[in-house]
Order: sequence, then structure tokens, then C-alpha cells
Amino acid sequence: MTRFALTLEFDGGPFMGLQRQAHGPTVQQCIEDAAASIIGSPVVMHAAGRTDAGVHALAMRAHIDCAKPLPAFRLMEAINARLRPHPIAVIACEEVPDDWHARFSCIGRAYQYRIVNRRPPLTLERGKAWHVTRPLDAEAMHRAAQALVGLHDFTTFRSAHCQSASPLKTLDAIAVRREGETVLIETAARSFLHHQVRSMVGCLALVGMGQWNEGQVGEALAARDRQALGLNAPPEGLYFVRAVYPKSEAQSAG
Amino acid sequence: MTRFALTLEFDGGPFMGLQRQAHGPTVQQCIEDAAASIIGSPVVMHAAGRTDAGVHALAMRAHIDCAKPLPAFRLMEAINARLRPHPIAVIACEEVPDDWHARFSCIGRAYQYRIVNRRPPLTLERGKAWHVTRPLDAEAMHRAAQALVGLHDFTTFRSAHCQSASPLKTLDAIAVRREGETVLIETAARSFLHHQVRSMVGCLALVGMGQWNEGQVGEALAARDRQALGLNAPPEGLYFVRAVYPKSEAQSAG
Repeated sequence: MTRFALTLEFDGGPFMGLQRQAHGPTVQQCIEDAAASIIGSPVVMHAAGRTDAGVHALAMRAHIDCAKPLPAFRLMEAINARLRPHPIAVIACEEVPDDWHARFSCIGRAYQYRIVNRRPPLTLERGKAWHVTRPLDAEAMHRAAQALVGLHDFTTFRSAHCQSASPLKTLDAIAVRREGETVLIETAARSFLHHQVRSMVGCLALVGMGQWNEGQVGEALAARDRQALGLNAPPEGLYFVRAVYPKSEAQSAG
Repeated sequence: MTRFALTLEFDGGPFMGLQRQAHGPTVQQCIEDAAASIIGSPVVMHAAGRTDAGVHALAMRAHIDCAKPLPAFRLMEAINARLRPHPIAVIACEEVPDDWHARFSCIGRAYQYRIVNRRPPLTLERGKAWHVTRPLDAEAMHRAAQALVGLHDFTTFRSAHCQSASPLKTLDAIAVRREGETVLIETAARSFLHHQVRSMVGCLALVGMGQWNEGQVGEALAARDRQALGLNAPPEGLYFVRAVYPKSEAQSAG
């Protein structure tokens, strides 16, 4: 058996999310079906994160096991050929040790959230960013966000469907900056709760619009109550951008 | 009568091009229909360029005449509201003198062409760039492109359907550079022939792949023969990015 680490790029728009669902297409199903048709037996994929419907990835990490010996490059090419016309691509593929696990070995995850902040509707970026028409103060958003950094009970920023055993998480970093009409939020942690990034972004947007003052983000956090959440940002602005692993050989493309 | 200059951003994917066609949706038709429903009488739009089916615009310039006096901002908002769900947006709108003409007053046009140069298929950039899998030497493309700068007979790089009276055009600049896996071609001229940018890009890609040597671009130009064209690049990588006018008041958003 050979274990392959895959780096995936995908447009989350047409999918019900990354994880296999009984009804509707998912990224996992597409990869597993493509790989199974190459290997000739069922394949199970494990991924670093479980992105929601509509959420994109620039470099999601995953792994599959392959009974057939196959060069990594040929496996990547064959999966990509079978993924058409789905907007998913394997952008890197490498052999990893059998004990390397895309989810359990992962020690860091990073997301980017894109807001296009302008009056006119989106055209080329439709489905690829959150369209916010009210002017956002990105510097105020950045300052307010710093209250979230560190070890906290993130119950306020956690979906009711979150399966994590604990609401305690350590947020390593969150930064907000403006590039023209785009406001970018970048955040990193060992792991995130379900909807955590979108919930943090939603509240920061309220600060950016002046509906919340900067201190209210910290107050919402301290409330440890989902009812204190101001706004959950939509999925189409969210990108999984990086998974970090302790062993350098398995993070070359991360 | 008030003349309004519009700056348009659009995803060319769903359209048969900018210019009104008997069959199929066009950008012109969408804008004219939206404006007519606001003004209450037929509207004719004139644009700086006539982009083909699938070609995008970041800042196309156009104008319409309006019998009703209307603040420019309100006209922009009303057109945008009526353009939904088409991926077209009026990103700027301003009153201009009656003799200002989006097409005939335009003294400069600029295009950008995006190539994504990698083995894996496109996902988030699908329909927004040309996917070239063979490695491209962007520096060789840049050097080869310089043979096209200046006043030339561009017959080789001109569509059989081109309606221009003369194949003589002056290319002001063309530059090729790599940004990661993206190869960007930027070019500017007073005006371009039909398919000129795509034809130039197609031949430069042949140089980038090593199928043509650098001198062959100049030879193809000198041949003044459409048969000498190596390749016409597909429309989805092409973006109209700038129209230049002599009067500064009408180019603020250009």
C-alpha cells in the first residue's frame, strides 16, 4: 500500500462541501470516484479540513491509499483527467509515509476571506468573494480582530452543528488589510471550529461598517453565546489556503 | 439631452460579445435594455471597443444619451439594479459634453491577456484565463513581442472578418511577464484590428513553448499573410483594461 498526499484546488460553488454527503456532489466524492476508477478498488480520502458548501480551496491537503504502485505524477495526471468537468484540480501529489495523515498530522490551518467592498455588483468575482456595499474601515476591522487572538472559548463563533469536542481554540493570527476595493482577512490556527472564520469575519464586517464599535468583538467573544454573534459571513468569500505538517517532505506544496 | 460616459466591467463568458447581435445576448443589449427601462425610450450605446464572445472587460468605456435629466450616480445605480443577474456592472458614470464619443474620441486602448501555465486543469480561473500546459518561457515571449511594436501592416494578425479600412496600425507597447504560474501579456495602441491581440498572443505562446524561434514573430508580421499566423489564442484570457481620452474629465475611471 502506498499513501499519497494530494494538494487540492477547487471552486466550491457547485459542491455541497468537501465531505461526502448522501445527497449532492462533494469534492470528496469526485476525488474518490476518480481515484477508484484508476486503482480499480474503492478509495477513501481524508482531508485537512471540512469546508462547507460554496467554500473554495487554493491548497487543501488530503491523502488516499493506493494498493497499486504508481508514480505520484502519473496518479495526479490520471485523477485530473477523470475530474473533468468538475472545477477541482490536484495541483501536487507526493508519496508520504503510511503514518502521515492529512487531518490528524496537520498542525496548522490557514484561511483567507475576500470581501469586495464597492457599490456596483460583482461580475468576474461573482461567487468568489463577499460583496459588501457599505464602506468598510479595514484598519478598524484589523484592530478589533486582535481581541480574538490567543486561547479562547469560541462558543459565540461556532455553528450549532459543530462536532468539535471543545469550544476552546487558540487563534494564532488574524489580519485585515485593504487592497483597492478588496478587503482581505487572513487567519491561522492549529484548527478552527465549524463556521468560526465566517463568524469572525461577519462580526468584523459589522465593525468595518460602523454598526459595532471595535470593543464589541471582544465582548461577543466573552459572552460565549451564539446569540451574541452579529453576522455569519457567506461561504463564497472563504478560501482554505494552507495546511501545515511537522514533516517538511509533506508540506512542499502547502 | 445629457450624455453619460459609462465604465463597464463584465464577465464575457455568457455573452456573444459586446456588440448587439440578432441572435444571442450581448453586453450592449443588456445595457440598452436596462437604460431604456429607466429613461422610458430606446437607448443606443456606443463603446470604445467591440470585444468578442467570451472576452472580458475591467474598464470598458461607453456612452449613452438620456433625454431625462438624472444624477449620474442614480443612473448608475438604476442600470446596475436592472442588469441583474447578468455579470455586467457599471462601475463609474459621469456626465460628459455632447461631443464626447466613447468610440471616436478614444485615443488609446489597452488589453491584458492572462495565461495560466501549469499541468493541472483550471478551477477558480476557469473561463477567466487561457490554460497552457506546456512550459512557457515568458522572457523569450517578451523579447519576440518587441518586433510587433511600431507602425506595421498587421494583416497576419487580423481576422478575416475585420472591418477596419486598413491593416496599418501602430502598436505602442507589448510586454510579457510571469507572476508565479500566470503569464501576463499587456499591450496598448490607439486601436487594434479584429483578433489582433489574440493573434499576437497565440504566436507569442508558440515562441514560449519553443515551437517558434524568437525571430519568427517578426517574420510572420513581415509576411502580411493570415496564413502565416501560428495560432489564435482563445477569447477567455482577454481583458479590455483601459480606454484613454484626450479630455481628463472623461477618463477618471479609465
